[in-house]
Amino acid sequence: MENFIYSIPTTAYFGKGQINILGDTIKAHGGSKVLLAYGGGSIKQNGIYGAILDQLAQAGLAHVELSGIQPNPRVESVEEGIEIYRTNGCDFILAVGGGSTLDACKVIAAGVKYDGPVNDLFRGGPGADLKAAAPLATVLTMAGTGSEMDMGAVITVGKDHKKKVLMHPLVNPKFSILDPEYTYTVPEYHSMAGVADILCHLMEQYFTPESGANVQDRMNEGFMKSVLEEAPKILANPEDYDARANIMWASSMALAGFQLLLGKPMSAFPLHSMGHELSSKYDMTHGVTLALLTPAWMRHTMASAPAYLPLFARFARNVMDLREEDDAKAAEAGVQKLEAFYGAIKMPASLREAGVREEDLDLIAGKAVEDGNVGILTPLGKDEVLQILRAAF
Amino acid sequence: MENFIYSIPTTAYFGKGQINILGDTIKAHGGSKVLLAYGGGSIKQNGIYGAILDQLAQAGLAHVELSGIQPNPRVESVEEGIEIYRTNGCDFILAVGGGSTLDACKVIAAGVKYDGPVNDLFRGGPGADLKAAAPLATVLTMAGTGSEMDMGAVITVGKDHKKKVLMHPLVNPKFSILDPEYTYTVPEYHSMAGVADILCHLMEQYFTPESGANVQDRMNEGFMKSVLEEAPKILANPEDYDARANIMWASSMALAGFQLLLGKPMSAFPLHSMGHELSSKYDMTHGVTLALLTPAWMRHTMASAPAYLPLFARFARNVMDLREEDDAKAAEAGVQKLEAFYGAIKMPASLREAGVREEDLDLIAGKAVEDGNVGILTPLGKDEVLQILRAAF
Repeated sequence: MENFIYSIPTTAYFGKGQINILGDTIKAHGGSKVLLAYGGGSIKQNGIYGAILDQLAQAGLAHVELSGIQPNPRVESVEEGIEIYRTNGCDFILAVGGGSTLDACKVIAAGVKYDGPVNDLFRGGPGADLKAAAPLATVLTMAGTGSEMDMGAVITVGKDHKKKVLMHPLVNPKFSILDPEYTYTVPEYHSMAGVADILCHLMEQYFTPESGANVQDRMNEGFMKSVLEEAPKILANPEDYDARANIMWASSMALAGFQLLLGKPMSAFPLHSMGHELSSKYDMTHGVTLALLTPAWMRHTMASAPAYLPLFARFARNVMDLREEDDAKAAEAGVQKLEAFYGAIKMPASLREAGVREEDLDLIAGKAVEDGNVGILTPLGKDEVLQILRAAF
Repeated sequence: MENFIYSIPTTAYFGKGQINILGDTIKAHGGSKVLLAYGGGSIKQNGIYGAILDQLAQAGLAHVELSGIQPNPRVESVEEGIEIYRTNGCDFILAVGGGSTLDACKVIAAGVKYDGPVNDLFRGGPGADLKAAAPLATVLTMAGTGSEMDMGAVITVGKDHKKKVLMHPLVNPKFSILDPEYTYTVPEYHSMAGVADILCHLMEQYFTPESGANVQDRMNEGFMKSVLEEAPKILANPEDYDARANIMWASSMALAGFQLLLGKPMSAFPLHSMGHELSSKYDMTHGVTLALLTPAWMRHTMASAPAYLPLFARFARNVMDLREEDDAKAAEAGVQKLEAFYGAIKMPASLREAGVREEDLDLIAGKAVEDGNVGILTPLGKDEVLQILRAAF
């Protein structure tokens, strides 16, 4: 097991009615004028917006708004938020929504304390080593990205829709309000795309070279099993509180402090690297891209690095509950059972079915590896990514 | 799932050589004069004491010492520590050792900020709702109690050796240094008693009434499996780094923020309630008492509340990897496999073998329930505790 630091800076207030702590808790964190940021406005239909305004008013907090943050959020939303925050003398950011709104707000939190272009703040940029960030809290309305408990953000930049990453402990939310009831009205397709996203976060932290970190992997297996068990209950009844609660909590815990990667080699998150390019090109829902690519990536890895067959067989046995003793057969059966799960939660069966054009695959593969190898168990350069895309097509 | 707050105030620095962050990190937390507390002095034989003095000196930190904290630590050690801290104008506490030293230091941390007798600080006392505590860090030399990542402490008070509990977020360590190599020299018997303690913490958070908290229970199953897998490796080779690391991390994670109980009904920790009385009476190693009582408690619960058989059968299948389909048979087979595990890690087979006298059982049962029912799945009053003690005898 490698050395690590375990630190969870975000407090989670989980459950029904936890919105009631919002105003006082912002105040306790020194907030007096809040930048309230959200997406397309669905929070105005489901009562969340009203509850938040009540909380801010009751605690005597002023606020200004940034609305219209889109899925696959763009740097222009971030720049707009920074401008509003500064112009109005805000001192706290409240992100209400799913991963897109939360990610945009993390970069706003960094940007308002940085004297230069937002682009500097992303990985590899001259401002990536943040010196300060505005305090941020979140109210989650959709489970999946885990952004409410981690230090990462993904933003789309430029005409070619490049996905850029900000990763810094200073943008961890101070606290997050997680009320599973807030996810009741998330449409089925997006709820299940969130499930695919959670599962992928878990798998990308599980499928790494041997490290001896048994506790982390056993914990991960528990999370994966829970997600497989609970997701179908949401399909059957979108207002199944416990199922919504378990999916929401699995999502948060999957990335809290990257606890499942502690002691292990850092994952390159290959599926996210490839998936982000599909999202960029087609504005495709993030989790859907992951469900589409995962089985093809697994088979590619099993074929090109048979030494990892026991790892995939362990997944099949411990997570997919298969009894097959032969590693190769178990591993393949595990992939098939995972495909069946994606089918059951109504993910598209192929890139083609999801609207991807065959003539774009080469371009997508090239963009996915623009910053170099994205593999973890095996090297993934352009050729390998193209093979995976073709297999998933 | 019930509402909960997830908060992990302690940062863990895990791995080889992490002692090197000690001096600077104490300074970063505002420490300048440190009360260095430890137990019987084994840290002077294995090099840990020297490394700590180097760290303190290098960071320019003064220190005074409290030594000789005993297993099942007594309130007199706490009082001595408070006196030394105050007399010398300390501003930071560093606990070096296992759960006993850590627990004593937590109560010292609370006591130095409280104007009254230490006894006031325990559960139910007039000072139990702490207003302040001194900052505390820990260097762990033995895995088991989880005290390095939680907010609890157990102290022995009075002539009748009553175990008293302090439980408050203010005594969470600011940070804990967890170096698995520091546990290489822990004698086999105490290493394995630590394993029994970890497993018991996990089981007492697992065996609770149905709550819908699937994620937490699946995570718990992962921890339990890991402990069952890793402990025998330590028996085979006390310097198996990964095995020591997994056991140490399982121990910490089992109680970090009581994360496995979040969303579930609070456990009464029945096995700890009973076990503490055995430790008090015979100065018996804490974890050993738990190994002795657990199978008897499981069988008592299964017999008196058959409605919980599916829960014990789930343990047998998901943790003990048994395939039996009948719940009652699976549950009993699970207990037997657990007994076999305790045998394999060389725990005594019965209270009698461990030196308990039959004529004391009545007294022990009475003391265990002095503060009322200690049950969680079924009520445990004096009669029931006596039955369990007799079955374990």
